[in-house]
Amino acid sequence: MTKERAYFEVQALKKHGSLCPEHVPEVYHFDREMSLIGMRYLEPPHIILRKGLIAGVKYPKLAEHMGEYMAQTLFKTSLLYNTTTEHKRAVAEFCGNVELCRLTEQVVFSDPYHEAQYNRWTAPHLDSEAQEVKEDNILKLEVAELKLKFIERAQALIHGDLHTGSVMVTSDSTQVIDPEFGFYGPMGFDIGAFLGNLLLAFFSQDGHSDQKDDRKAYKEWILSTTESTWNFFQTKFTALWDENKDGAGEAYLPTIYNNPELRQLTQNKYLLDLLHDSLGFGAAKMIRRIVGVAHVEDFESIKDIDKRADCERQALRFARKLLKESRTFNTIEEVVKAAKEFNI
Amino acid sequence: MTKERAYFEVQALKKHGSLCPEHVPEVYHFDREMSLIGMRYLEPPHIILRKGLIAGVKYPKLAEHMGEYMAQTLFKTSLLYNTTTEHKRAVAEFCGNVELCRLTEQVVFSDPYHEAQYNRWTAPHLDSEAQEVKEDNILKLEVAELKLKFIERAQALIHGDLHTGSVMVTSDSTQVIDPEFGFYGPMGFDIGAFLGNLLLAFFSQDGHSDQKDDRKAYKEWILSTTESTWNFFQTKFTALWDENKDGAGEAYLPTIYNNPELRQLTQNKYLLDLLHDSLGFGAAKMIRRIVGVAHVEDFESIKDIDKRADCERQALRFARKLLKESRTFNTIEEVVKAAKEFNI
Repeated sequence: MTKERAYFEVQALKKHGSLCPEHVPEVYHFDREMSLIGMRYLEPPHIILRKGLIAGVKYPKLAEHMGEYMAQTLFKTSLLYNTTTEHKRAVAEFCGNVELCRLTEQVVFSDPYHEAQYNRWTAPHLDSEAQEVKEDNILKLEVAELKLKFIERAQALIHGDLHTGSVMVTSDSTQVIDPEFGFYGPMGFDIGAFLGNLLLAFFSQDGHSDQKDDRKAYKEWILSTTESTWNFFQTKFTALWDENKDGAGEAYLPTIYNNPELRQLTQNKYLLDLLHDSLGFGAAKMIRRIVGVAHVEDFESIKDIDKRADCERQALRFARKLLKESRTFNTIEEVVKAAKEFNI
Repeated sequence: MTKERAYFEVQALKKHGSLCPEHVPEVYHFDREMSLIGMRYLEPPHIILRKGLIAGVKYPKLAEHMGEYMAQTLFKTSLLYNTTTEHKRAVAEFCGNVELCRLTEQVVFSDPYHEAQYNRWTAPHLDSEAQEVKEDNILKLEVAELKLKFIERAQALIHGDLHTGSVMVTSDSTQVIDPEFGFYGPMGFDIGAFLGNLLLAFFSQDGHSDQKDDRKAYKEWILSTTESTWNFFQTKFTALWDENKDGAGEAYLPTIYNNPELRQLTQNKYLLDLLHDSLGFGAAKMIRRIVGVAHVEDFESIKDIDKRADCERQALRFARKLLKESRTFNTIEEVVKAAKEFNI
């Protein structure tokens, strides 16, 4: 990896921090030559969210905080808020972070779909499932479209790696870290990463259940958090749109779009497209964590290999359906209902 | 306008010229400080294509030449041919041509849809039609989506202004000039500009008919050229894809996509999406030439104002349908059939 990743991490931290200081740690100092970042220490009891999800800890403010973070950072770095001139200047700068974008392209959109040296999965349990992923033409057609959208579409300054390992939490604090993959890409890649990783956590719970705790209530909490995250995001994003309807954003000029009926139409269309994007990207992120190179502790920490394979198989089958049929879902509630049906 | 437009014009001429030297005039010298371009003189009998279309001249090689030009320049500046690293470097550079992009945003995607100082139309004949354009919520919803695609989607190095005034022709030479609006944008913007301007020429013909020539045969020729341009483009684009299937293009890695059935699926999907984009952009370009700031000589040169208004009304009504229903067309033949139905 190039040292320049630290530069882009700091640029993203500063930009996102200026837009959502409650959920982004402050950068105090950056030395580009030394790739040295001085930033806020996230003191205990902050822990990595993924570890909390494995331990079965509930975070009552998580959905609201993440909805707020994603709405603020994505809305305010998009053409809904900025002029084309501002937008293109920032897009051009972040084109420099191409090395990390290429890594994402490879591990998310390519590796799971062909023989790749470091691909692995729980074997032999998932051998045939992993093979099916490589032979599923419709799945690969959809993944190609997502990959092109990831590279071509400069919709907003995204975090670029917004899984549950990039979030630190306490019961009332939520802090998003590590945006070194940040660049101007599709909003759905961030939203999907977060929702997809919550769903991985959901499917892993049966592997963490024991006599003390069957995790049933916790599974319900994860699903309700998945729903609420999207719903808080959608509500906040729409509110920002309404607040800024007379602003400088290039996308919907007030003289053309400021009638209530039309604004409703454009918001509904924008957010439904964004839900579909998010589901597609989220599903791709789930698949790559089960049959690709880098796995997640949610599953890896399940000691019983048969149990782990069962959990992973459910998640993988659900993700394949989600990826191929993302555009058939109209609400997050329908997605959560489908996830439950795969958890048998 | 900034002097820098000459720089981007030369960059686009050189890149497109290297990919399709038969149809792009050679640049001999460029002095950036002086904004001085020395390039091939397109000797008589080369004339601007639009003037030939108004005069009723047939160009038997036009469709094939334009199909070839668009296939070569668009395919070979896209991720079907290039690595992400090459692509993002070029995208970043052309982000600098933002001033001309903003001009396009304004005149194509904004002006016709609100009161704008320099909007004009054939009045009073088209007063109510021009008003309807401003009040058609579904039309404006679709235009907003196209505008965002125009700004956000860096699919290929497009010419950016590929109407029939940017093409010089003789009976066997076709030369594309004036790419000063060039940047990385959606391929459909170029294809649509050309097809849309052919359709404007088609709808203007009744205004140019006289006792010597009723222009019926010429209208047929324009429509058949519209069809053939897309079909030649599609055939050539697919051939380039097949030839380069084992190349470095990031979009469809050979290890994932090189089975004949899947390649067919991906090509069909890519080209259908591209047809839909092209129809949407083409329709937007037609609309702006009738009720926006800059009109076209095809209509302007019709002396009889009633005749002109009739021609423009047909074209405008067809374009509105095309823009709102672009995704319902599966072939260019269906589009041409629909155009005929509006020419009554």
